[in-house]
Amino acid sequence: MHSYNDLLKIINSELNKLNFDKEPQNLYQPINYVIKNGGKRIRPVLTLMSCELFGGDYKNAVSSALAIEIFHNFTLLHDDMMDNADVRRGNPTVHIKWNDNIALLSGDAMSIIAYKLISESPVNLTDILNTFSNTALNICEGQQYDMDFEDNPDVSEEEYIKMITLKTAVLLACSLRIGALSANAKQEDCENIYEFGKNLGTAFQLQDDFLDVYGDTNKFGKNIGGDIILNKKTFLLIKALKEAKGQDYQNLIHWINAKDFNNQEKINAVITIFNNLNIKEYTLQNMEKYYNKAYEIFDKIPIENERKKVVIDFAESLRRRDC
Amino acid sequence: MHSYNDLLKIINSELNKLNFDKEPQNLYQPINYVIKNGGKRIRPVLTLMSCELFGGDYKNAVSSALAIEIFHNFTLLHDDMMDNADVRRGNPTVHIKWNDNIALLSGDAMSIIAYKLISESPVNLTDILNTFSNTALNICEGQQYDMDFEDNPDVSEEEYIKMITLKTAVLLACSLRIGALSANAKQEDCENIYEFGKNLGTAFQLQDDFLDVYGDTNKFGKNIGGDIILNKKTFLLIKALKEAKGQDYQNLIHWINAKDFNNQEKINAVITIFNNLNIKEYTLQNMEKYYNKAYEIFDKIPIENERKKVVIDFAESLRRRDC
Repeated sequence: MHSYNDLLKIINSELNKLNFDKEPQNLYQPINYVIKNGGKRIRPVLTLMSCELFGGDYKNAVSSALAIEIFHNFTLLHDDMMDNADVRRGNPTVHIKWNDNIALLSGDAMSIIAYKLISESPVNLTDILNTFSNTALNICEGQQYDMDFEDNPDVSEEEYIKMITLKTAVLLACSLRIGALSANAKQEDCENIYEFGKNLGTAFQLQDDFLDVYGDTNKFGKNIGGDIILNKKTFLLIKALKEAKGQDYQNLIHWINAKDFNNQEKINAVITIFNNLNIKEYTLQNMEKYYNKAYEIFDKIPIENERKKVVIDFAESLRRRDC
Repeated sequence: MHSYNDLLKIINSELNKLNFDKEPQNLYQPINYVIKNGGKRIRPVLTLMSCELFGGDYKNAVSSALAIEIFHNFTLLHDDMMDNADVRRGNPTVHIKWNDNIALLSGDAMSIIAYKLISESPVNLTDILNTFSNTALNICEGQQYDMDFEDNPDVSEEEYIKMITLKTAVLLACSLRIGALSANAKQEDCENIYEFGKNLGTAFQLQDDFLDVYGDTNKFGKNIGGDIILNKKTFLLIKALKEAKGQDYQNLIHWINAKDFNNQEKINAVITIFNNLNIKEYTLQNMEKYYNKAYEIFDKIPIENERKKVVIDFAESLRRRDC
């Protein structure tokens, strides 16, 4: 079995082999730009890793791994349009660098290119296609719930977990399952690795919410408190809105409705409310709950621990990140 | 073999069976709205017709026929966003009735739903997937060329034919080829029916350009001259820009650059220039050239004429339309 870094090298090398140097340039250059713009490549690496975990040849999973990475980047491209985001990974987003129409259409093309690659899967094509399509549709559903939440003052914790499961977690789950399918793994193993990924992905997103507020300022890519400034309905804000009483509640509503404010002042004020309500501990507890559930499910997969180590090491590296 | 109308009934009944009454409603209601908004269903009917032509059971082509219709409607939805079109088939477009974000995301979901349906093809799945993906990507390329042409003062006839082939004709070709593949037709027959569809589709689009100017005002769905008002780079305008000399050229440029004008006055003036340059005859000649080429290729398919009649009748109904 290859190490995480070996698999990452394989993915980057295979991505580089894809040729988007084609006409019309206004369609293909943005695709090239997005793919070359980096990213951690977690999902395609997990696909290859899962394939090897179940004894498969990683080469059988390469085309679907690339499909998943391209699909992921397509969702980011269109999400950035919907969120009016100007920057992605330190560079201008496609609709800023080009324009809305070009971003829309090159995104559409990326989704098709992802399907072209998925269709090249040499093992278990039908199951892989179904997993991929169901996941792709889940991601659209999750994104729509996320947008719906913006206008909904009363989002429950359960609704939030459902949304991040659809928007974020199932793609990690799908990456692992497609790797397992490419190795001809048993159905039960495919289910377990999927559920492992889903819980891991949910934990990962809760941690993202957590780190936006309590991350290490020196290391975290974005500045601390970005979600607070934007009133983003994170797990922390949803819990705080539910638990806050009296002065804390009034303060929270004041800062949510404030139009002109000093960013740092708002961040400090909201963090103070979060601290009063023990939101930090509550979020960590929930995050740990999903990590632990992921590990429990992973334990059920009947493979010797030595083979499993590369997956556990990866999950632990996520769990231990502070940025 | 079923008649065109029988096949149309089958398609409409199968489309009605698709269930988009799902959550989140802001994702699925626009899809329902678009699918229920009618349309001639030419493409899915051609898929079933081609399947029967080659001796297949139309049931084997139903899921891919639905996929093609949904994909076609997805491209219209996103095209309408790119063109800022407010109305489609007499009803508000999705980005007008809902908003841009919802139109973007429900379009993305339609593309995925199309692939879910294509994946259900029971015969020749790999070939059908490849045909579908290549066509889908061609359509994106065609749409990009079309947008690029808006800013290009010097589009040649050849470039225009290439654009409409990609944007419009290949989907007709794809519909027929996927029907043939669903009937396990020979590779040569699949190629011929594809080329037949491509030429038919090119003729159809040239006819669309023609009818915008020379159609029967009482019958044509949109008003005569819509393309002229918008300076749309149609086959007619491209040819006129190339051929016009002296006063005709100056008049044409004047009307293209005019900001404030009376619509009917502009239409009449441009039609006069077209008439001076024999654009009507030239366009009809080219349209006929593609219809004839389509028939020539169709003749090569070794099937008795009686079976072929339903396809020829359909092509003739296109050729003879005056609106």
